[in-house]
Amino acid sequence: MPNTTDSTDRTDRTTTDADEFTVTPYAVEGEIDYEKLLERFGADPLTDEQIDRLPDHPAIRRRTFYAGRDVDRSLEAAESGDPHAVVTGRGPSGPMHLGHVLPLYLAKRFQRETGATVYVPLSDDEKFLAKELSFAEIGEHTRENLRDVLAVGLDPDRTRIVVDTADADVVYPIAVRLAKHLTPATVEAVYGEQDTVGLQFYPAVQATHLLLPQLVAGRQPTLVPIAVDQDPHVRVCRDVAAKEALPVEKPGALLGRFLPSLEGPGKMSSSGEAASIELTDDPETVAETIRTHAYTGGRATLEEHRERGGDPSVDVPFQYLRFFFEEDDGELERIAREYRSGDLLSGELKDLAIERITDFLADHQRRRAALGSLADALEPYRLTREERTAALESAAVPTSFRG
Amino acid sequence: MPNTTDSTDRTDRTTTDADEFTVTPYAVEGEIDYEKLLERFGADPLTDEQIDRLPDHPAIRRRTFYAGRDVDRSLEAAESGDPHAVVTGRGPSGPMHLGHVLPLYLAKRFQRETGATVYVPLSDDEKFLAKELSFAEIGEHTRENLRDVLAVGLDPDRTRIVVDTADADVVYPIAVRLAKHLTPATVEAVYGEQDTVGLQFYPAVQATHLLLPQLVAGRQPTLVPIAVDQDPHVRVCRDVAAKEALPVEKPGALLGRFLPSLEGPGKMSSSGEAASIELTDDPETVAETIRTHAYTGGRATLEEHRERGGDPSVDVPFQYLRFFFEEDDGELERIAREYRSGDLLSGELKDLAIERITDFLADHQRRRAALGSLADALEPYRLTREERTAALESAAVPTSFRG
Repeated sequence: MPNTTDSTDRTDRTTTDADEFTVTPYAVEGEIDYEKLLERFGADPLTDEQIDRLPDHPAIRRRTFYAGRDVDRSLEAAESGDPHAVVTGRGPSGPMHLGHVLPLYLAKRFQRETGATVYVPLSDDEKFLAKELSFAEIGEHTRENLRDVLAVGLDPDRTRIVVDTADADVVYPIAVRLAKHLTPATVEAVYGEQDTVGLQFYPAVQATHLLLPQLVAGRQPTLVPIAVDQDPHVRVCRDVAAKEALPVEKPGALLGRFLPSLEGPGKMSSSGEAASIELTDDPETVAETIRTHAYTGGRATLEEHRERGGDPSVDVPFQYLRFFFEEDDGELERIAREYRSGDLLSGELKDLAIERITDFLADHQRRRAALGSLADALEPYRLTREERTAALESAAVPTSFRG
Repeated sequence: MPNTTDSTDRTDRTTTDADEFTVTPYAVEGEIDYEKLLERFGADPLTDEQIDRLPDHPAIRRRTFYAGRDVDRSLEAAESGDPHAVVTGRGPSGPMHLGHVLPLYLAKRFQRETGATVYVPLSDDEKFLAKELSFAEIGEHTRENLRDVLAVGLDPDRTRIVVDTADADVVYPIAVRLAKHLTPATVEAVYGEQDTVGLQFYPAVQATHLLLPQLVAGRQPTLVPIAVDQDPHVRVCRDVAAKEALPVEKPGALLGRFLPSLEGPGKMSSSGEAASIELTDDPETVAETIRTHAYTGGRATLEEHRERGGDPSVDVPFQYLRFFFEEDDGELERIAREYRSGDLLSGELKDLAIERITDFLADHQRRRAALGSLADALEPYRLTREERTAALESAAVPTSFRG
């Protein structure tokens, strides 16, 4: 489950007091106790009632997103037809993989079912600062990532895509506003020690991302779907929002489990480090990647598998179906049952996943190819002049000498 | 002598190894050994030949500016008719006083005599972060300060005025570029420990100010007139420029002595803390302020003064004449001689200064009153769209998705 702006790779351990399991940017070691994580972060498990009221999506129904903060506020707004927002971002440090785009499709589901405004911030500043890449390279990734974000097909009337450097006229002054009382100690506690002053400042930019829908369009519940270990980032923003007395509600969070990397549990997806499915992969490449790299819950031999059955709970193709690609609960249960019994083989399960992912990518790629010029395609998703002024004024940033 | 963006008030002591004298933002204690300061900073005293080649201005001729870095580079460009720049900024945390505006008039002299491009950055971001003022209050000071900057009468074809929040579209991405290798340790060594992540980042913005003329219009010598204790800020920028392999020369510096506050030596001018002459003061107020507050080198009684004479070297009205308001060396020498001999009384010397300052302010105020709408008056001094793109491209910041 990718995080809002993909900052995990700079975060220190989110837990330091745990002997049983640790969650770091690079590895999830031991069996994760997701309940215990919530206790540490002080967030609440989603109730059955909340899940019923949230959009009908496998990642929610099956509790991949299993906890949250202030989820009811968003539910109430959605049910009353009041404005509410979802923020889900992207750190453009490389090509987008399947795992990176799924939260955007989840946001699209929110938009369709609840009328949510969706904000997609791209933190090219942070990625330039954090990675051994030039600004030109980050720019090229940003262009390609923008094509993928646009290919999701969000409604331009209710979606805003923000690129930190390209929208610095609005992002930077608001970040300064939020940075006024953001101490080095707070940032270090949540984001870890930073090597440069650029990264020391970035949490103020990330907080800006999460408040932007409200600054542009007025106080409204905002939900941020993120991996549970990113919850401290949301909390920084909540604290800042409260301290600065801005005309905003504290953003809420929808907290998710980790999506396993293709190569199996015990590792998080991390771009460039492990085999993964890129959004531009053709069907042959997808099939080859899954057949070669996907961690399987099957047995070592066909005979043993037929006899003892596979384990869907660690099988990555099955987890992909469960998380996103098999919407039908009955069908998913049938697959799990047949896999456990040994009737369904690992290769057959892989083929099922390959088929679903290939279909999904074909649609995505078709929309991506139809985009035309990036600047033209992006234009209807950019903040308007009036929205920029509104956001700055909400944050009490003077605008009168901007001309 | 005000500094480039008035950051002195957050700087730790620039010297830690000195027992004889200390220079801090709030006080200059002991007799300052300006030669020793240069040794510490590793800058060079201006030679007679350099002073001959620099614009003919009392602050240079009389060595208020007494040292520099890479001054010859600017001189060569000026003499060859090649592009060169002067950067002198303002931190808009309050009304501008006489001392704040003098560097701008010095820059105007450069512009007229050498054809220099003048850049005037206003660090409203830094002042918002550093002061107990709201953004609305900083905005009001910025508006008023802009009127004073405009009243100087710089040539709009060769002057750019930049306000950090209003020009964040170009300032922030370049600052990010410069922040990539700017470490917390470097910033802390030069600027002191900071309370917020906003101020930790600000040195990258200040470095942006000093490189902006070159990023906009190509590699060229840049001279930054500042008080000698601000030299470390220029050095941070020089180090960053070298490290980032940008298409720029290291900015040079023209290093000045401290202009005494009205209330005398041993204190630096500091807005709001001491009596001072505001740029909007009417003649009566100027006279009243100088008569009441100006530190005098005269004797306690008329009799003693007639007998033993005054000391122009500590007399603030005399120092104002020397630094800026009496261009004629012969006339200044005559005043000093008569003061030393006791023929010229303190009150008479004050009246001389009052007359000159009042004349100067009348011209300034006349131009200020004639400005009309701030946005309209500022417009010809703002970076053009082409200049913004040029600056971003020079810093290799991607611009293609800006639309």
